[in-house]
Amino acid sequence: MKKLIPVLLTILFLYSCTQLQEQQETIQTDPLPSWNDGNTKQAIIDYVLDVTNRESENFIPVSDRIATFDNDGNLWSEQPAYFQLLFAMDRIKALAPDHPEWKTQQPFKAVLENDMKELGKSGVHGILELVMASHADMTTTEFETIVKEWLATSKHPRFDKPFTDLVYQPMLELLQFLRDNDFKTFIVSGGGIEFMRPWVEEVYGIPPDQVVGSSIKTEYDYNNGNPVIKRLPEMDFIDDGSGKPIGIHKFIGKKPVFASGNSDGDLQMMQWTASNNYKSFMLYLHHTDADREWAYDRQSHFGRLDKGLDEAEGNGWTVIDMKKDWKLIYPYELIK
Amino acid sequence: MKKLIPVLLTILFLYSCTQLQEQQETIQTDPLPSWNDGNTKQAIIDYVLDVTNRESENFIPVSDRIATFDNDGNLWSEQPAYFQLLFAMDRIKALAPDHPEWKTQQPFKAVLENDMKELGKSGVHGILELVMASHADMTTTEFETIVKEWLATSKHPRFDKPFTDLVYQPMLELLQFLRDNDFKTFIVSGGGIEFMRPWVEEVYGIPPDQVVGSSIKTEYDYNNGNPVIKRLPEMDFIDDGSGKPIGIHKFIGKKPVFASGNSDGDLQMMQWTASNNYKSFMLYLHHTDADREWAYDRQSHFGRLDKGLDEAEGNGWTVIDMKKDWKLIYPYELIK
Repeated sequence: MKKLIPVLLTILFLYSCTQLQEQQETIQTDPLPSWNDGNTKQAIIDYVLDVTNRESENFIPVSDRIATFDNDGNLWSEQPAYFQLLFAMDRIKALAPDHPEWKTQQPFKAVLENDMKELGKSGVHGILELVMASHADMTTTEFETIVKEWLATSKHPRFDKPFTDLVYQPMLELLQFLRDNDFKTFIVSGGGIEFMRPWVEEVYGIPPDQVVGSSIKTEYDYNNGNPVIKRLPEMDFIDDGSGKPIGIHKFIGKKPVFASGNSDGDLQMMQWTASNNYKSFMLYLHHTDADREWAYDRQSHFGRLDKGLDEAEGNGWTVIDMKKDWKLIYPYELIK
Repeated sequence: MKKLIPVLLTILFLYSCTQLQEQQETIQTDPLPSWNDGNTKQAIIDYVLDVTNRESENFIPVSDRIATFDNDGNLWSEQPAYFQLLFAMDRIKALAPDHPEWKTQQPFKAVLENDMKELGKSGVHGILELVMASHADMTTTEFETIVKEWLATSKHPRFDKPFTDLVYQPMLELLQFLRDNDFKTFIVSGGGIEFMRPWVEEVYGIPPDQVVGSSIKTEYDYNNGNPVIKRLPEMDFIDDGSGKPIGIHKFIGKKPVFASGNSDGDLQMMQWTASNNYKSFMLYLHHTDADREWAYDRQSHFGRLDKGLDEAEGNGWTVIDMKKDWKLIYPYELIK
């Protein structure tokens, strides 16, 4: 028995060493399992390994590893229309009984008649009118409740799934891969900041203070010791196009080194990121998969990608070919 | 020799166990060494231990541990005037040769003549005029450079030290104590967001995206492929008074559970925090130490604390008595 003690102790000691090592070692498995092997996946991995390598001339200190992601059509789908527009339409229908005038007044009439063609004609101005009428004149807490209820009860017309099921599994992996390498991940979206905040933490792992988006004005009301913030029917900030670098500067205060988007509305964010003194990475998602998702680019009403595609090609930015590069689209396909 | 092996192995094994344990154990030393023992220090520690204890009915999940700190007069001094105002005055003097009209035009005349009394008369409107004239019409990068240069070369008139030396050591410890307990610490200041961002990460350990402050409007300029953001002479947002809950909602998107301030401009932030469904903590700093720092409250031009002091007393919020509660004020006193 006595002879066994040193052997047992040696085993115990070696075992405890292994445990320590395991904690410290980086995970060696594929960080992007839903991406097909190829140039796109390799370019992402090469970039991250390069700029996080202390020996590399392209090394970026942790505090400057800022990654910005567009949301609509980039982290989740945006067809047949931006999901926030579908939400606004549902709200308009719910509020219609109190607004008989909407029966004859555009763009409300188009909403009530589900006339997407007429609605398209009303343009950005029409969409903003719908947002004002359906998103304002309530407290921020009330609005958050309405968003959560809508997401919990509504289903996407094509896939018959909750909208938050229609996020892109490959992008969830990319967000996690970046965070595992000490990037701070932000959403920078043209969508409403308060439409995103109630669910992005759970779905994307991105906390509310790392969300940049469009907003309406608000007002503080002491309300006899039960303070509330009221949403006013007036635009405060539109986080789209050249609004994206402005929003990034305003909310984040540092220039990104990694930017990911899918439309011309992301082009200025890409340019801004490309001008970083650090080695930067610009990633465009090209919707090329009509079977599993949608195929659209230069002619689309929602998420038009035209100039951005030309600039990406001209500048050698990385373009995801959804059909070719992604093994699967949505997380629920993993369970099948 | 052979008999020694099991002994040595046992020692090695026990040692490796201790190492592991040490990593996992919470630090048992005083987290607030520059605070005198007493009610204030104890109230802070009791609160943090309570809300981070999983067994407590007051437990707050990590993602909701939001702590907001005013800056001027709360994390660093603000006398004889807000340091940003001293910066603006230096800028006005530097720009004066190009503006002969300032010799006769208030509030510029007062700045050029160092007439603080006359400057005081010009009020908030006058200060904003100085900020516009001295902080705008340049790119954000140029402004950052000017701020850094000023901080590197200017000294405080009373203490003859760089302004960033005049931060409060006890508050640095409080920030660190909160972060060690998984609070996310934010600055919420009436000061200019771009005046703070260049230095707060190094000085307070707070990254630029966790800074909320006042801002002027900006504009994106593609600039033939070398994009810049231009600072415009127009206010965008004033993060003071009822602007603070608005700023918190806009930038952070969650209600704080811990708020720390020193003036009436922080009162609405305190009320907003006090209305949290979680157990919250409101902390006012009362400047009571004319010898080591300054003593001022209800009558002060800068950092007036009047209504806030009454509300703090009425609501049982914690008030720091600087003279009584702080062993020392500035970090350089540690080295003495």
